[in-house]
Formats: sequence, structure tokens, C-alpha cells
Amino acid sequence: MNNFKKLMAAVAAADIDALMLESQVNRQYASGFDASDGVAIITADKAWFFTDSRYIEAAQNTISDAEVLMVSRDWPYSRRINDVIDSEKIKKLGFEENRTTYSAFTKWNEKLNAELVPAESIITDLRAVKTPEELEFLIQSQRTAEKSFNEILPVISTDITEKELATELLYRFQKNGAEDKSFDSIIVSGPHSSMPHGVPCDEKIVNGFLTIDFGVRKNGWCSDTTRTLCVGKPTDEMRKVYDIVLEAQLAGIAAAHAGVTGSEIDGAARAVIEKAGYGEEFGHGFGHGVGLEIHEAPYASPSCDDPIPAGAVISAEPGIYLPGRFGVRIEDVIYITENGCVDITELPKELIIL
Amino acid sequence: MNNFKKLMAAVAAADIDALMLESQVNRQYASGFDASDGVAIITADKAWFFTDSRYIEAAQNTISDAEVLMVSRDWPYSRRINDVIDSEKIKKLGFEENRTTYSAFTKWNEKLNAELVPAESIITDLRAVKTPEELEFLIQSQRTAEKSFNEILPVISTDITEKELATELLYRFQKNGAEDKSFDSIIVSGPHSSMPHGVPCDEKIVNGFLTIDFGVRKNGWCSDTTRTLCVGKPTDEMRKVYDIVLEAQLAGIAAAHAGVTGSEIDGAARAVIEKAGYGEEFGHGFGHGVGLEIHEAPYASPSCDDPIPAGAVISAEPGIYLPGRFGVRIEDVIYITENGCVDITELPKELIIL
Repeated sequence: MNNFKKLMAAVAAADIDALMLESQVNRQYASGFDASDGVAIITADKAWFFTDSRYIEAAQNTISDAEVLMVSRDWPYSRRINDVIDSEKIKKLGFEENRTTYSAFTKWNEKLNAELVPAESIITDLRAVKTPEELEFLIQSQRTAEKSFNEILPVISTDITEKELATELLYRFQKNGAEDKSFDSIIVSGPHSSMPHGVPCDEKIVNGFLTIDFGVRKNGWCSDTTRTLCVGKPTDEMRKVYDIVLEAQLAGIAAAHAGVTGSEIDGAARAVIEKAGYGEEFGHGFGHGVGLEIHEAPYASPSCDDPIPAGAVISAEPGIYLPGRFGVRIEDVIYITENGCVDITELPKELIIL
Repeated sequence: MNNFKKLMAAVAAADIDALMLESQVNRQYASGFDASDGVAIITADKAWFFTDSRYIEAAQNTISDAEVLMVSRDWPYSRRINDVIDSEKIKKLGFEENRTTYSAFTKWNEKLNAELVPAESIITDLRAVKTPEELEFLIQSQRTAEKSFNEILPVISTDITEKELATELLYRFQKNGAEDKSFDSIIVSGPHSSMPHGVPCDEKIVNGFLTIDFGVRKNGWCSDTTRTLCVGKPTDEMRKVYDIVLEAQLAGIAAAHAGVTGSEIDGAARAVIEKAGYGEEFGHGFGHGVGLEIHEAPYASPSCDDPIPAGAVISAEPGIYLPGRFGVRIEDVIYITENGCVDITELPKELIIL
């Protein structure tokens, strides 16, 4: 699986002659090949992939739709790229302005025979729209994470610490075929659950809400899920807040379809929480894109006024956080279609009481 | 623990009026505080740390020797930094040229009232020299990794895959108190052991050499160790190659002391391997610095002609790789002193035969 053809069409439509991809994740998206070192160059009708001796054999066996060439002391990246610049008469070479460091830019700018032009949005926009094959990978990641979550439910008790539970969860991710977590699990118990980005600590799980925000990386693709459980009996207020968050999530999901803006989706969920009097306690956005990276375009927060495209995959994760008391967040991942969206998370959302 | 005083002295000695640190790892080194968002500014006699509402309370409780202030919509980073630039009359502001992206540089360059000057080497050089307290953290990380390694020895057999062994190892890292691995374990068996950067695969471990290159991150500090074991009986040639690599490692360690160059240390090890006729089969450098990052300054490879400072902590990891047949690498971590070095790895180096 590679995306060279799609990138060629995007380059043809943009005001650049070629696009240079240096970052690992964008090279992987372009070529389908994951390596710590390499550069891809894409013009309107051709593509090249350069890498070093460690990866060249695997790259040549794996990558199609691009010419794969090795770099070496005598043929460094700059010489390989200049060969393409010269043969293809490239004047404007797009680069990844949000990933290329100042040093790397300065080096390319000195060595390459073309004008460097910021052009990262070309690939960011393409990556925001998932193909059916990419969606399938995302669903597989989601299933792996859900299976792992179900397996740790019997382990949860007031006898183990937040950190121990995080260790057990990661162990099951890998046992179930993920190569890694997609981010450090957030496992926060009792009063800690009011911290949206809390870090699992060495204290034992206590009675009250337990928020678990977790994801795997499988075949390179990320999952992202949050469930808030209750250890022991919830109070009426806890039940009320849980129900408001769930209602807000469902409202956001109901509002999601291609063409609405990220702020409109966020607003549909936020209205429910504001109406219930907890507007100040929902301090983050409704969602973010999920793909090869755990946070990527498009975003569904109050400041996002671009329409969400069909094929986008975003998280749906409103929350209410009452400092020093408790917090609730419920997060699914949804696939945006022309007329609505498909929730690709299968875990139930009724409050689980342990 | 923070390093503001040391950074102030370095700024005073450099041709800049202040240093701006944006990257997470360098902010952590400066302040002792780990947060995904923040900026530190250091002049010759003062320091500031800016972060957002998520981290401000913990930052104010944790950070000493710097003024800690919050950023917000009305007080963004650029306004906070310009306040310092104006009050301290800063003309040249050093920045991290190898970490700051082109976009971030462009934004700072537009908004800040000072000239931006590449100055990352100031902090890179300081980080290369470990304090006794930092060395203690590195030793603790090393011990945690070694304990985990010893615990997986009974698990190793031809009934489990390379990937399964990697999963078991990471599980023990965390059980033993590490927050994470410091890099993806390299676990390569039989003919795979000839790949210095091989990735654990789904195939079962086979008779022959088994190279395990592993490290933890504990309290932020990395460990790095490699051992090559033998599953089943080694051939005479395998024993011979193992002994050459060990002799090369000991020669490199014997050559290491403050003031010699990285290439001299590398050369002492390389001479042993070359003399034995395997020079072409040792394709990487002898070592790299280990600290808050798994690869950092200083480096001990053929191209490193700077003297290694006292207090540096580097890996010592020669190897011989015979493609399609087998490979051997043995890696310790050493602490450079005025007159020699201390090997902070305690695992034995005699060939373990399972």
C-alpha cells in the first residue's frame, strides 16, 4: 500500500514542482515503508525514494510506484535530490515546514538547486481522508485495544496501583498483536480522575470513578478510546455527570457528517454540557483526527472552522472535570461519511460498576 | 534537581544574551520538570519558565531557581518572552537549531524583539557531562534493566518468538519500576543476529546466537545494554568471534579516559577486530552518549575528533556481523573519569549458553 499516485495528483494541483518528504511518518504514508532514515521526492508524475544501506534491500522489495535508490558517502541525499531537481527541471520544491528543523532547512537551502517552499498541508490534507484499506487498519487497532481492555477488567481492584494497571494493559496490547501503545495510557482513579491528562501513579486504585484512556499502535495505525468506570457504588451526582457526558458525546456524534466544521461538532456536544451547567468544566476540544499519528488533522474544537471531509476519522471525547472530586470522559472514534458517521468503537458505553 | 545555575554560567561565557529552550528534553534538563508544553529562558544571571494552565501548579511547586509564570490566550509565550527580552535588554537570543522546526523559527522570528542565534551546542555540551546525582540515576536505570534481563533468561527457549520475548522483557521493565523502555528492544535470533538494528519478528527463537539490545527509561534517565547469548552449543567459529568482540570491547574501555577523542576510543576497539580480519564486519561506531536521551553527545565513532570530557557516560558496543550467518554485539555503559572509566554495567560478559 502506497500513496504516491495521490501525492502526484496533489503536487500537480499545487503551486510547486515537487514535494520532498523527510519525516518518518510522512515517508511511511507516501511509500508504505517504515524506516528511520530516508527521503521521498514526488513530482506531478514520478516519485523517488532514497534510503541508506541498512534499509535499501527491504525498500526495493517493498516499495512500488517509485524509483528506489541508495544513498552513500559518495551519493548523499543532497546529490540524489539534486539529480532529480536537474533532470526534472524543478524550480519550487515543497517541504514539511512543521517537521523540518531549522538546521535541516538551512542545510537543504544551501545544497539543493531549487527554491524551498512550505507545503506540508498537501500531505496533511491527504492523510486526513482515510481509504477503505486504512479504515480497516484503524478498525483492527481499535479491536485489539478493546480486547485488551476487556481482559484487564477482572484485574481492576483497590489492591493494585494505577501504574500497575497501566503495565498490565500494555502487556495485553502486545500479547494481542499490537507493536506498541499509541500514547502513554491515562489511568486515573478517584479524585485523580478530574485531571484530563493525569499520569498513572504509584497509589492504589480507590473507590470512585476510574478513567482509562488508552490506545494501541498496530501495523503503524493508532487507536484511541476512553472509558470511565466506577469502582464501588456511584453517588447520584456521579451518575448525573456520567449521563451528561454520554448525552454530549451522542449529540456530537449525531452532528458529525462531511461538510460541517469541527467547531460545529464540538458545539453540539458542548451545548449539552453548558445547558447542564458544567460548561466551565469541559476544558478541552471534542476530538482530533486519528491515523498514523495519535493526534492529526482534522480537529473538532471550538477554533476549527474548516469543514470536516468525508473519510476523516476523529475521536469523540467530551468530558466534565470537577477538580479534587472526580471526572468523566467517554471517547469513541468515528468515521465521517457524507450523511453522518460510523462509530468504529464497539465497547459499550453504559457505566460499568465494578 | 535543576541546571539553571550551570546554564546561566554557560550563557555568560557565550556570545548570546539569553538562551531559549523549547524542546521537552532540554526544558526538563534545565528545570528538572517534565511537561509536554513550556519554554525556558536563561540569561547570565536569571531564569524563567513559562507553561500553560495544565502544568502551572505542578511547575510552581517543583521548579526552583527560576521565575515560573503561566501562559494563556492573553499572555501567550511570545508576550511572556518579549517581556523578558525588553526588561533584560536582550539583543541576541540563542535557540535550539536542531530541534526548533522551520515553522516555529519563522513564528519566533516574526514575533520576538531579539535576534535569534543558533546556540544548541551550549546545552548539548553541558548535558554531555553528568553530575554525581545524574550518574546515580543512570546506574539505577542500568540496574533495573539488568534485573529484568535476568528475569527473562528462564523464559528463553525455541518455543517462543522474538516478539514474545520483547513483550516479556518490557513487562518486567515496568514491573521493576521503569516508566518505559528507552528504545524498542532489538531481539534477533540465529541468522537474524547479523542485523545490528533488526526488529523482533513473529518467528520462534532458533538455535544459535541470540542478541538482546535493551534499555529502560526510569525517572527520565536511559539505560542501554546488549548481550549475545547462545541457544544450544556454539561452533568454534562462533566462540572465536564472540571472544574477538569481547576483547575489542575491553580494549575500547581500556583506552577510554577524559581527553582522548571519540575516534581514539573507537580505534582501540576497531584495531582488535581489524587485526582478527573482521574489520569490514564492524559497520557502526563504538559508542554514543547516554542520558535523558538514548543517543546524545558525546559520540565515540571514527569521525569524532573532539576530546571526551570527564563525566561523560557513553556506550561501549563493538560488534561483528556475518550476513546470513550470525552476529555478536556486547554493550556496556561506561562513565569517563580523568584517568580512565568506570563500567556501570554489572551483567557478566562470559558467553551464556542456554
